[in-house]
Amino acid sequence: MRIAMDGMGGDKAPKAPVEAAMRAIKQFPNLEITIVGNEADIRQYISDDTRISVIHTTEKIEDTDTPTTAVRRKKDSSMVLAIKEVKEGRADAVISAGNTGALMTAGLLHVGRIKGIDRPALAPMLPTLDGKGFLLLDVGANMDAKSEHLFQYAVMGHIYMQMVKKRKTPRVGLLNVGTEEGKGNELTKQAFPLLQEGNFHFIGNVEARDLLTGVGDVIVCDGFSGNLVLKSTEGAGRSLFSLIKTELMSSLFSKLVAGLLKSSFLRVKAKMDYSEYGGAALFGLKAPVIKSHGSSDSTAFYETIVQAKDMVEEHVVTTIQSELVKYEQQRSKGEL
Amino acid sequence: MRIAMDGMGGDKAPKAPVEAAMRAIKQFPNLEITIVGNEADIRQYISDDTRISVIHTTEKIEDTDTPTTAVRRKKDSSMVLAIKEVKEGRADAVISAGNTGALMTAGLLHVGRIKGIDRPALAPMLPTLDGKGFLLLDVGANMDAKSEHLFQYAVMGHIYMQMVKKRKTPRVGLLNVGTEEGKGNELTKQAFPLLQEGNFHFIGNVEARDLLTGVGDVIVCDGFSGNLVLKSTEGAGRSLFSLIKTELMSSLFSKLVAGLLKSSFLRVKAKMDYSEYGGAALFGLKAPVIKSHGSSDSTAFYETIVQAKDMVEEHVVTTIQSELVKYEQQRSKGEL
Repeated sequence: MRIAMDGMGGDKAPKAPVEAAMRAIKQFPNLEITIVGNEADIRQYISDDTRISVIHTTEKIEDTDTPTTAVRRKKDSSMVLAIKEVKEGRADAVISAGNTGALMTAGLLHVGRIKGIDRPALAPMLPTLDGKGFLLLDVGANMDAKSEHLFQYAVMGHIYMQMVKKRKTPRVGLLNVGTEEGKGNELTKQAFPLLQEGNFHFIGNVEARDLLTGVGDVIVCDGFSGNLVLKSTEGAGRSLFSLIKTELMSSLFSKLVAGLLKSSFLRVKAKMDYSEYGGAALFGLKAPVIKSHGSSDSTAFYETIVQAKDMVEEHVVTTIQSELVKYEQQRSKGEL
Repeated sequence: MRIAMDGMGGDKAPKAPVEAAMRAIKQFPNLEITIVGNEADIRQYISDDTRISVIHTTEKIEDTDTPTTAVRRKKDSSMVLAIKEVKEGRADAVISAGNTGALMTAGLLHVGRIKGIDRPALAPMLPTLDGKGFLLLDVGANMDAKSEHLFQYAVMGHIYMQMVKKRKTPRVGLLNVGTEEGKGNELTKQAFPLLQEGNFHFIGNVEARDLLTGVGDVIVCDGFSGNLVLKSTEGAGRSLFSLIKTELMSSLFSKLVAGLLKSSFLRVKAKMDYSEYGGAALFGLKAPVIKSHGSSDSTAFYETIVQAKDMVEEHVVTTIQSELVKYEQQRSKGEL
């Protein structure tokens, strides 16, 4: 198995992805990794290049680039070249911590959609109080989703959580403004009965305020809503930490006392940090394309490599394909 | 001026609303208050009934009631009777901490919309790090909003923040998934150019992660999105506090040390508590209809009474009306 990595994406590239690659190679004897980027920059961090190869390029897609334009014009960028490794069959999965929009665009263009999937979904794992996390999809690949899309997200999320995260019966929930059936906007009202027909455990509507308590394993929503939830949660966490810090630093006494609790606060911060839960996979493409968080360190990159490896080993893509064929057959028989 | 209060809504009724009413009466000599509910229950908390009158009823709309059915069937409920005080001209504004959906339904039915407003919006003040707060609308009155609705929300929010909250030039932002123009779903893409035409200071797209840092004074969005942001923020705050508590209670040492910081944590909690910022006004109706938080104590009810009084004194409703007439004139002249 070979995984292609964009060696220029993210704040800590190329050091973090390269270190992660070396660690993964040591851990998994069947794994080969291709890193794409400035070869000299990358080589300085490689102490052992067993099963690691480098493809040299100096072009980079910046976070500020417009996704569609960047993918079209920057054909020799590290991201596009890494994705082409998958497209041309030289790699089984691809990882990048670069521009999210560009990765989605390039993934769609070069890797392509699974037959039966109308729109791919970007799916990060978000933290829960019990440390297990849940999958939220979509968080921004498809802004104006239709109810069929939400159904497809549920199918994909269910398979992923079962096969990769080893949850026996993943609880699939519909993100909504209330738990009662009939709540919500036109989209959620249409999606509810569709989700009831799926071959997965649909638990009904789920409220945003309950997500971090672990109310479901797979939560589906349109990309606009998912992005708002993701960023509200991130913003609230950050603001709360900032308030606590200001408050505790406001007197010498509380400053001294709080110093004694530093390790406790760091543990809480780590628990809320969703980059610890691996990257956000772009579901619905013909091979795993995974977005690692922009601030990923080598541990986060390593987790993302493991995630990509698991997705390949567990045949997530072909399982999604065959599950969709089954639904298609049910539909044509009028059973759905 | 007379304000009608639902004396049965909320977890702490009737004690909390009654105590708030007595405090407000003492503070504002021109204020009269009508409390609707079980007279015996209410009277036991009234030590001085100067300018306070009670309308007796025993019927109550429960939080679990279906809004439309409840409003239609429970005609003698404390909430419906309180709203009818406004409808029939005996009160200038109404406050309830009861069932939000029922209050929106009853407000729309009995108080009615301002001409030129297609849909009312529910608008709470949310906390910011600097303690000033911002107005978010809509958080759930209108699930499937159109771009014109968002424009009307901006007009109303601008007037409220200027007249009641005394912000000279309120910054009006559009809730979106990115700050660049052209980002978002169909709704926000259509709303952006409309908002640019308004007689208010439009600052463009605003991301959910920046809301609590005080990036804007008025943030407009559809009711589904606003509800998600409100509840994600609430849920993230609650989960984070719960994590911190678990962490600090996990060893005797940290437990003892954390005990010394209790007052600091309570101050942070109070700062994040949006019920401290008054109630959520239902904008777009012919009189102020204000939802106080279900868990409101007498301080929160008092803040809501002050808010209702300010909205009446500052003529928010008639200002919205005349502002809408101006836009109508501009539109008919082809200037908009």
